[in-house]
Amino acid sequence: SEKRLTDTTFSNRGMTLEDDINTTNSYYLNRGIAVIHKKPVPIQVVRVDYPVRSAAVIKEAYFRQASTTDYNGVYKGKYIDFEAKETKIASSFPLKNFHEHQISHMKQVESHGGIAFVIIRFSHLDELFFLPFQALYTFWRRMIEGGRKSIAKEELLACSIPLKLGLSPRIPYLDAVESIYF
Amino acid sequence: SEKRLTDTTFSNRGMTLEDDINTTNSYYLNRGIAVIHKKPVPIQVVRVDYPVRSAAVIKEAYFRQASTTDYNGVYKGKYIDFEAKETKIASSFPLKNFHEHQISHMKQVESHGGIAFVIIRFSHLDELFFLPFQALYTFWRRMIEGGRKSIAKEELLACSIPLKLGLSPRIPYLDAVESIYF
Ligand SMILES: [Mg+2]
Ligand SMILES: [Mg+2]
Repeated sequence: SEKRLTDTTFSNRGMTLEDDINTTNSYYLNRGIAVIHKKPVPIQVVRVDYPVRSAAVIKEAYFRQASTTDYNGVYKGKYIDFEAKETKIASSFPLKNFHEHQISHMKQVESHGGIAFVIIRFSHLDELFFLPFQALYTFWRRMIEGGRKSIAKEELLACSIPLKLGLSPRIPYLDAVESIYF
Repeated sequence: SEKRLTDTTFSNRGMTLEDDINTTNSYYLNRGIAVIHKKPVPIQVVRVDYPVRSAAVIKEAYFRQASTTDYNGVYKGKYIDFEAKETKIASSFPLKNFHEHQISHMKQVESHGGIAFVIIRFSHLDELFFLPFQALYTFWRRMIEGGRKSIAKEELLACSIPLKLGLSPRIPYLDAVESIYF
């Protein structure tokens, strides 16, 4: 089967959250609050066509697994690095949503004095949570050591900061950064 | 005309410099010195084929102009952001190698307390220079105000730090960061 993509149908999962974060980042950029961008999706290009007098057309390429996270940038001189994740499950957040190299990337970031976190969206009730990497890593280690493979909703409520959808910014995640790290 | 690409022939320009910087970043990462990665090339995906039982194949896509720079990450808690550029010209570095949005991105980074710079390679003699954004911006403004459209080699020698190719790391650019910003 073949599919023609527009910007809004590019991904089935997570598009709404990503859109909201991109809008938020534009707000932060335009107001001079922070410089935070989404990293491009890594794509392995295999075959390119160079038509005379027009732009190169990629004819064969593959999506690659990202080795880091979705977003990074700078806020008040500090390095900011985060991942956005959505789940349709109502009662817990499955840790299989993370790849091991994303966890180790965020761990490295924190060990170098950067700020790493996750924005989690429960799409069912459109609830958003700001989870600092340190809390995520506790749950991750519990899984590695044979414990449960998800974060229970009550655990998330205890360890994260709820984010309320607004108009501008759409997802005021830097308020959470400010309250935890500054 | 059509071209099949391997990792080493992906770009005619800049591949060697990019390879050297990627190798350097791996060294810095593995030694626990810094977490700095190349951003993926932004690609606009238009058409994707989903063969049954195998990975999605991108059948039509286009290279997009990068809105920021090539590399970013964290070093000693500080946000690091830089661009790598090569020229075959021997006596000067043409400023048309930069897009205006790259300049404004680096300006924003610096205004938020990040560290922005450029690594310039003169491929003719394989000379490398570390140019802090502030110096680059001086030459950029001179051009905007009607002055010359390039940085003369003597000017570059006066405003930049030469980088010597080594074995590990290949391009010790964090030594220059350390000497200027710390
Ligand atoms: Mg994500
Ligand atoms: Mg470049």
